[in-house]
Amino acid sequence: MNLELDRYGLWEGINEVIVTTISSDGKPNAAPIGIIRHEGKLMVRVYNGSQTYTNIMETGLLAANMVYDPVLFVRSALSDVDDDVFEFIRTDNVEDFPVIADCNAWMLFEAEYNRENTVLVAELHPVTGTIRHKEIRPVNRAFNAVIEAVVLATRYKVFKNEKYILQIKSYSNTIYKCGGSTDKNAYDLIFRLL
Amino acid sequence: MNLELDRYGLWEGINEVIVTTISSDGKPNAAPIGIIRHEGKLMVRVYNGSQTYTNIMETGLLAANMVYDPVLFVRSALSDVDDDVFEFIRTDNVEDFPVIADCNAWMLFEAEYNRENTVLVAELHPVTGTIRHKEIRPVNRAFNAVIEAVVLATRYKVFKNEKYILQIKSYSNTIYKCGGSTDKNAYDLIFRLL
Repeated sequence: MNLELDRYGLWEGINEVIVTTISSDGKPNAAPIGIIRHEGKLMVRVYNGSQTYTNIMETGLLAANMVYDPVLFVRSALSDVDDDVFEFIRTDNVEDFPVIADCNAWMLFEAEYNRENTVLVAELHPVTGTIRHKEIRPVNRAFNAVIEAVVLATRYKVFKNEKYILQIKSYSNTIYKCGGSTDKNAYDLIFRLL
Repeated sequence: MNLELDRYGLWEGINEVIVTTISSDGKPNAAPIGIIRHEGKLMVRVYNGSQTYTNIMETGLLAANMVYDPVLFVRSALSDVDDDVFEFIRTDNVEDFPVIADCNAWMLFEAEYNRENTVLVAELHPVTGTIRHKEIRPVNRAFNAVIEAVVLATRYKVFKNEKYILQIKSYSNTIYKCGGSTDKNAYDLIFRLL
């Protein structure tokens, strides 16, 4: 199984992906979440109060979508994404589960959790997956800075501490110097959604 | 040509790659450098005093190597790399030019520059290239933090200002929380090489 995880890019450490889930009444959701791989196990930590938390409780399922679209990271973290970002897959176990249509790869998991606390800690068991599009992708510091800014923006939404806004603004130089137009648009979108 | 650059992952903005060059007496060199793509042109800025600068002056050539090895970014920024990281390619124009053996892709360029100042600003004209290994690679904030720490470490080497060391140390939490062993090793190596 480890080899399979490697092939999907899920390496040791925390892999930042877009997690898609579905509610019991069929509404899809997307959120950026870290998939933790440690000593051969995959884990995820999801905060109570999020739609992802509720959906995992209802279905026991989530999909990790490997994507590089900075706008999608921003939008899924700070608001709802448009319905057309989703595509619905069908497997032996599941009918019509949402994944990100433009993802490079997705992997569907069963989530095994013991307790329902402030944080849901679940071990993930792969069900199936598809690799759609491998590519060459050098480091871009602006894209990376957008990801950091998204992390800070989600903290700001919870704690409303202005220090997070200042930290987000500190990425402006890197993003405008190193970024392409998509990175810059994603960064600007953060301020519009906060 | 733009389509070809896209295929090699060289998108609008600054792409952080390992640049390989060779001296007139045949010694290969590697250094992390940003390849700037702006309005359809590729450019590079290289500081006088670096081996990369001297080698480009001598040969007019450089190769961009797309790699994800954080240890290679650290080592090539702060010291010499071992000879065995290189492999020598042969093209119609060039005999035995060094590229990184373990790269995902490399692209060879002719560098067109007008002036020889503190900073060499060169336009890059693609000669040839090879894509070796496409992959799925989700965001890892620890890998990204190593890249930021490398940028700060190269500034520290020039300016010897302790504020850069403090900034490098500020990445410790992210790297130990989100990183795999390679990211952690790369980060520790920065302090040994400074």
